[in-house]
Amino acid sequence: MPLTRITQQIRFIAEADKLKEILRQTLCSQSRRQENDAEHSWHLALLVMTLAEHGNTPGLDQLRVLKMVVIHDLVEIDAGDTFAYDTARMADQHAREARAADRIFGLLPEDQAREFRALWDEFEAKETPEAKFAAAVDRFQPMLLNCLTGGAAWRRHGIKYAQVIARNQHIADGSKILWDYARQMLDEAVAAGHLAK
Amino acid sequence: MPLTRITQQIRFIAEADKLKEILRQTLCSQSRRQENDAEHSWHLALLVMTLAEHGNTPGLDQLRVLKMVVIHDLVEIDAGDTFAYDTARMADQHAREARAADRIFGLLPEDQAREFRALWDEFEAKETPEAKFAAAVDRFQPMLLNCLTGGAAWRRHGIKYAQVIARNQHIADGSKILWDYARQMLDEAVAAGHLAK
Repeated sequence: MPLTRITQQIRFIAEADKLKEILRQTLCSQSRRQENDAEHSWHLALLVMTLAEHGNTPGLDQLRVLKMVVIHDLVEIDAGDTFAYDTARMADQHAREARAADRIFGLLPEDQAREFRALWDEFEAKETPEAKFAAAVDRFQPMLLNCLTGGAAWRRHGIKYAQVIARNQHIADGSKILWDYARQMLDEAVAAGHLAK
Repeated sequence: MPLTRITQQIRFIAEADKLKEILRQTLCSQSRRQENDAEHSWHLALLVMTLAEHGNTPGLDQLRVLKMVVIHDLVEIDAGDTFAYDTARMADQHAREARAADRIFGLLPEDQAREFRALWDEFEAKETPEAKFAAAVDRFQPMLLNCLTGGAAWRRHGIKYAQVIARNQHIADGSKILWDYARQMLDEAVAAGHLAK
């Protein structure tokens, strides 16, 4: 017997609860424990609400950006978190995550599975102004937490200034203003000895 | 010298990071540790995206509902979490939280402080269809986690079926369909011995 529509939706929501256990390399500013993907996704939603005016393209569809950041990491329930500077694991990252997207969004009723998958594909492709802005806050937020924790994750992994610049400069594709702010923040982190030049 | 607009915004975002340390009584379904407010707020955003079609009022403004759930618990950074069944602490809850709203939203540039405060006031008043739906998912989500953890939080606090019904029946003001689903879920929890009748 097919599941009712709402039962499928609630099963998806219950499955998504696993995102709270996927740990990232970034530390929370207060307790300095590792942040998890659910907290990170919430924080991104708040960044979108607060910083959308700084997007390069005026009149961003904020609803679509919010939806993208809410769901962008669900694939990590199966695929795990890939550290932004782990180039070896990044090689097959998209393939692992696409399989996860098939399974996880596939829990939803078919029309919603298509809608959520399209949002995730849009986020991954980074082509629309909305996806570029979502990607910008997704890169900016861990940099901010790194700065708030004295560069803890950078120092633990021996990440240097040039790597941070190279890895994050696409923030400018979504928001030149945010990238200007980020570079200033990085200069201050270098000056404070939290990030090696 | 006044702070630049973006510096004020980033300070607000950094302050908001404290939400990740505010623990709730509800347990996460996997690790069974206490959920925090940031994770809870993210989960609500996902519920809104997934369940908005079940709102009593057709054509809900989903963007406003999402914004409300993203910011609704920020006041708990100062005021702490109030357990849904703690009637003693609930007495001065709104006053404590309103003071927190003044301080925390007050970190933002004035126009955004007004916008975020208006969203929080709307959520608290539970009068608009959007606020009623946001309140419905805010009550439904902990019930779902309770059911997924064998009624852990209910049993720890000696909460009984009639209390759960009384405390959560306003879910029906936002979504009759979700409340019907919730009652069925509660009946199953009683049958399984996870919730005392």
